Amino acid sequence: MPNAKNTIEPAILKGFQDFFPEDLLARRQIIRTIERVFELYGFAPLETPAMEYLEALLGSGGDAANKELFRLESPEGEAVALRFDLTVPFARMIAQYPDRLKPPVRRYAIGPVWRADKPGPGRFRQFVQCDADIAGAANIAADAEIIALMAAIMNALGARDYAILINSRKLIDALLDHCGIVEEARQKHVLRVIDKREKVGVENVRLELGGGRVDESGDPIPGACLDEKTIDAILALVAIAGDSRADTVARLADALPDTPAAREALQEMRELADILAAIGIPEAHARFEPSLARGLDYYTGPVFEAVFNNAREFGSVMGGGRYDGLTGRFADRAIPCTGTSVGLDRFCAALKHLGLLETAATPVQVLVVSIGNVPKAETMRLATELRAAGIRTETYFAARKKMQMSSQLSHADHYGIPVAVIIGEDELARGLVSVKDLRAGKAQRADITDRNAYRQAGKTAQVTIPRTEMIAEIQRVLKT
Amino acid sequence: MPNAKNTIEPAILKGFQDFFPEDLLARRQIIRTIERVFELYGFAPLETPAMEYLEALLGSGGDAANKELFRLESPEGEAVALRFDLTVPFARMIAQYPDRLKPPVRRYAIGPVWRADKPGPGRFRQFVQCDADIAGAANIAADAEIIALMAAIMNALGARDYAILINSRKLIDALLDHCGIVEEARQKHVLRVIDKREKVGVENVRLELGGGRVDESGDPIPGACLDEKTIDAILALVAIAGDSRADTVARLADALPDTPAAREALQEMRELADILAAIGIPEAHARFEPSLARGLDYYTGPVFEAVFNNAREFGSVMGGGRYDGLTGRFADRAIPCTGTSVGLDRFCAALKHLGLLETAATPVQVLVVSIGNVPKAETMRLATELRAAGIRTETYFAARKKMQMSSQLSHADHYGIPVAVIIGEDELARGLVSVKDLRAGKAQRADITDRNAYRQAGKTAQVTIPRTEMIAEIQRVLKT
Repeated sequence: MPNAKNTIEPAILKGFQDFFPEDLLARRQIIRTIERVFELYGFAPLETPAMEYLEALLGSGGDAANKELFRLESPEGEAVALRFDLTVPFARMIAQYPDRLKPPVRRYAIGPVWRADKPGPGRFRQFVQCDADIAGAANIAADAEIIALMAAIMNALGARDYAILINSRKLIDALLDHCGIVEEARQKHVLRVIDKREKVGVENVRLELGGGRVDESGDPIPGACLDEKTIDAILALVAIAGDSRADTVARLADALPDTPAAREALQEMRELADILAAIGIPEAHARFEPSLARGLDYYTGPVFEAVFNNAREFGSVMGGGRYDGLTGRFADRAIPCTGTSVGLDRFCAALKHLGLLETAATPVQVLVVSIGNVPKAETMRLATELRAAGIRTETYFAARKKMQMSSQLSHADHYGIPVAVIIGEDELARGLVSVKDLRAGKAQRADITDRNAYRQAGKTAQVTIPRTEMIAEIQRVLKT
Repeated sequence: MPNAKNTIEPAILKGFQDFFPEDLLARRQIIRTIERVFELYGFAPLETPAMEYLEALLGSGGDAANKELFRLESPEGEAVALRFDLTVPFARMIAQYPDRLKPPVRRYAIGPVWRADKPGPGRFRQFVQCDADIAGAANIAADAEIIALMAAIMNALGARDYAILINSRKLIDALLDHCGIVEEARQKHVLRVIDKREKVGVENVRLELGGGRVDESGDPIPGACLDEKTIDAILALVAIAGDSRADTVARLADALPDTPAAREALQEMRELADILAAIGIPEAHARFEPSLARGLDYYTGPVFEAVFNNAREFGSVMGGGRYDGLTGRFADRAIPCTGTSVGLDRFCAALKHLGLLETAATPVQVLVVSIGNVPKAETMRLATELRAAGIRTETYFAARKKMQMSSQLSHADHYGIPVAVIIGEDELARGLVSVKDLRAGKAQRADITDRNAYRQAGKTAQVTIPRTEMIAEIQRVLKT
């Protein structure tokens, strides 16, 4: 609201982020890598607007997604909302343009989504997703491609110690079917409970699969009301961990009843294991994890998550799976789909934590500093020379007419610009410039407390040279 | 709404755009060029969210912008709206982070903005702006930098026949002041009328500066009620066109009264002319155009527009100017600002029209086509080899188990994939692959109507070679 001075308090909305150059350069580096790998794997970009008709979004992601919609009105008075993911708009697009988007369609999309969620550390109301999906490929080979894509993204970003966890919704379903638990809502309840294993521990999962429990705050959590025998069977199943993908499948086969549903689920996993071996995905980088469930309602087959083993606290940085029913919202016949989504914010945080992100404070490489009465046109002429050589150059024009060298240098320091090129009238007349390595100057002075020594140290990182040698000297300094 | 079959009609909102790969690849090419040039000129990225508090946006862009706001509510029940430009959020940011964003600040931002405007050809409710601004530099040299930046963007995108039109709000203001028309609202009315010169013609401008007129539809347009002498002076001023920037300034000096305001305006233009000459901006690429006014209320000094001389129908593709008052909304003391904004959609359309945009239909270079009973794992192994060599490769996994070669090749054709790599069981066993140049095949067949000749022609664009030679052959085909 306007304050006492009748100005508006400058503030960002709760749960939203402003980004500074350092963040944005890091994010761009990741986005470009992801984009490049998406394209390497044969995905082409599609883009939809921020808004969709409310009815297209409502109900597509379950109750939680419904509640989190940012709703508004179109100028025509229609109910619309900001997209909460990139998957539903993709499903809308393939239904809307069947002639242009003939299946199989491989598309990727990178862009913001909005959720009116409760904000918290690392949880924002606007965040960027990077999605790649294949529509119109029912074959398990398409899921293998998605897993290969996930591994390729990890590799391209320099990750070494990571794992893609793989499971199939069909495994648990087959077991539950066999135990007589066939109602869909109940099966999904069981999946949600299993998904909490890492968070609440096996004993609490046991209670929630049975009669329920009371959580730390004293709130009752209703149980799924399964019998002891079924609970034991489920817990035994999700605890299976083989020495290899093939070994895990073999152990799962031993644990599951010999029903058509179980055979189908196992057959798919065997095929997946064969393909992953054939294309050289190391066992350490992709493993079957029977406890993996994933929260979203729309998955129907294999599900995936990628984690950094050495940065587990960041949780899953990519997720995905097969969702064969979703496009049926918009068309008579559903198109089988599988895909993955990178959560950029979390991914970025994990990479930064692991030291895998080189982050410059600014893209600017040189500040042109002019002292005395050097005409502005001369300062700009110098900048023009530098830019013509591809050097990213800022000129300093302050509000005041008389510019102090010190304030220009502290500007460079404040924004992390690595090099200053200094010209004065005398240098200009003699065809000279001074090139100052601001990073070296800073490093040299880091341990010096004596005032004079401090000044002297800074100076050694500066050379005065003929203007013709300027570009080469700057390039040399930037390389060090 | 759900239709008879109980599915939701897939539809995009009125005034919004879905983008296909061809559009997006072209847009990305332009955005990356703009981004590169922004950075070359010393601008660093800042990014704000899609939403701002309503009060921050209301009134900042004038009545028209107010009406066009997409309004919504935050989860906390606050009134918020989608940003209608990138300038107001930047003003908010520099007021909010004074320690971090110490002036002078050079920032760029590229992102969507939303206006609940009446949609029309080339007019959308969501569109991308690319902005670069300098905050905290009152000096005219900063405006010269912006003009140099605009020229650099045009040059980088391959434009040759373009002009940046430059004027100063202060010129007209000085004249109006001298004629006793000092009221701000009235001065702005005059500017808006002058801005319509190109659209409605000089005679209608004369009427609108005087008693008003009736437009083609019979609606009355109220006039600015200036006297004949003032109208003559204004029309004479805006018609001035010198042989060079310096000449135009000299002629303007002759036409203007010798007042302090006029002297200040002319002095600024002279300085601008000197700097533009010093940094080598050709006369043809940047000229003073006294009739240029620009619609937005917030400009206070120099204003700029870039047009393609050979594609005038696309109007101004970049605009900008000095706005020294805007940041005063959020802070006690306004920070002088100048900047430019590229309208990506219009820019893209103009470049396409001029043939300056190379547009591929898809980033995908190769489709791996498998025939007969080649295992999926083998198809993927081949794709893995290609991707390892940096070749953007799609594998084809249709819904049906048995895949026809023809349907795979028509998939490649439909999406514009240039090369197919074909493997069958026999080739696989013998270590061979076939590489098919789909563009050449298409070109060879273009003029052939005979069915057999047609088939034969297509085949000559295909070679069967050892798998070890595959990468080299594909690279050769992609280069042609």
